[in-house]
Amino acid sequence: MKVAVLGPQGTFTHQAAEEYFEEYEPIFCHSIKEAMESESDYTVVPFENSLGGGVTESLDIFREREDISIVGEKVIPIRHFLVSGENSLEDIDTVRSHPQALGQCREFLSQHGWVQKEDSSTARAAGNLGEGEAAIASRLAAELNDLQILEENIQDNMSNETRFFILGPRRRKDPDNDTTSLLLLPEGDRPGLLQSMLSCFSGHGINLSHIQSRPTKKKLGDYFFYVEAEIGDHQKSFKRATRCLETYCDIKLLGSYVSDR
Amino acid sequence: MKVAVLGPQGTFTHQAAEEYFEEYEPIFCHSIKEAMESESDYTVVPFENSLGGGVTESLDIFREREDISIVGEKVIPIRHFLVSGENSLEDIDTVRSHPQALGQCREFLSQHGWVQKEDSSTARAAGNLGEGEAAIASRLAAELNDLQILEENIQDNMSNETRFFILGPRRRKDPDNDTTSLLLLPEGDRPGLLQSMLSCFSGHGINLSHIQSRPTKKKLGDYFFYVEAEIGDHQKSFKRATRCLETYCDIKLLGSYVSDR
Repeated sequence: MKVAVLGPQGTFTHQAAEEYFEEYEPIFCHSIKEAMESESDYTVVPFENSLGGGVTESLDIFREREDISIVGEKVIPIRHFLVSGENSLEDIDTVRSHPQALGQCREFLSQHGWVQKEDSSTARAAGNLGEGEAAIASRLAAELNDLQILEENIQDNMSNETRFFILGPRRRKDPDNDTTSLLLLPEGDRPGLLQSMLSCFSGHGINLSHIQSRPTKKKLGDYFFYVEAEIGDHQKSFKRATRCLETYCDIKLLGSYVSDR
Repeated sequence: MKVAVLGPQGTFTHQAAEEYFEEYEPIFCHSIKEAMESESDYTVVPFENSLGGGVTESLDIFREREDISIVGEKVIPIRHFLVSGENSLEDIDTVRSHPQALGQCREFLSQHGWVQKEDSSTARAAGNLGEGEAAIASRLAAELNDLQILEENIQDNMSNETRFFILGPRRRKDPDNDTTSLLLLPEGDRPGLLQSMLSCFSGHGINLSHIQSRPTKKKLGDYFFYVEAEIGDHQKSFKRATRCLETYCDIKLLGSYVSDR
């Protein structure tokens, strides 16, 4: 079973795949877009981070592509480690990582006077270390690159988590699925439209657990909405809610899955 | 009158200030945060782009700081120009710009085999050109750096616009103000909360023209909401709507202003 993930090996997306799948062959891709377009059985994409918010690249591709099918969800804590080929902190003069990871470890880094260098991913930083260099990366990246872990959990904020979606072939209805993701695609805007759309859910007793807006890229102020509905065993009510929604906007069902939160 | 803008000179934020203020002294800052913290009379910050969506850095600071006061709005079209010290396209071998600008001119760039180099802003790229180099930047950046415009409007998507807010001292009520920005800050989440909050607006006949969610950074799935209400001359209804909202969440009024859309 081939699973496309954002590479190189040791990224947090790779880690999410490791935790979700028991046996699989990872296909490492250069971008989220490349992963979604690859010839694989499944694809793992980051969707939301508790500090940074929605991963807009994923959401925009969900709207553009016809064949999106979310079949699963995996939440993993983002733990940053200081990893190196050197044996002790005293031998470090430079720290490399993705700019976001450097920013998330600001307190730890402020205690050391190291030069900071930016790389395009934490995993790439860990794979390209020179003498006197350390990387801020995942535990998995340390293991895969045979590096020492010099410090654990060096991120400022301990509530750093990322939610990943597993995309794959559409499945038959699974009674365990408790969450459905869909896009609401209104034609233009008019007073009260969002409120009217949301009332279709509340009016049929369906709770929304998440809402995110993204520009349609047609004109300033033109948005579409990504929502997650807690369907539970209210399949009938959910069907009625979508019939109600269809009177206001186009709908794109992205898939139903078991929530990992 | 001092106005803090994101520098260096020639950025689109600088251009927004040029178009909004008749006479002023620009203070060029290194980041949105630095601009908001500077000792100036006014501050101009980017808030929303028609392709990229909300500028999350601005929104997060709106939540963190106590003294935010939006007094105006300016929308400017984002037009990218190929600018250089060289006189013709044949003399160019390298093009420099902010990665976002390079990405927004992909079609134009694909017609030329130039090396692409990334800078931290379009204005900085225009200010640092070597031999054989061109920058993708604003017309203002070309003028300020005394460069030739080799090609105009090279962006793929012509509906590229950015909306800026002007922050400044709180003013007395102006009857021309038609839009109010506010943050809705719920404590945690419960079924139907967003829908209930929005019903305070619709229930009092107030239209929402914009909604954006951002993580509170406390835990995954915990969000606050930025909304814009079209108050027009419904001041009384708006007051009732906020009283209704206060039963559901904390509110932070950011300011009222004349919409530029």
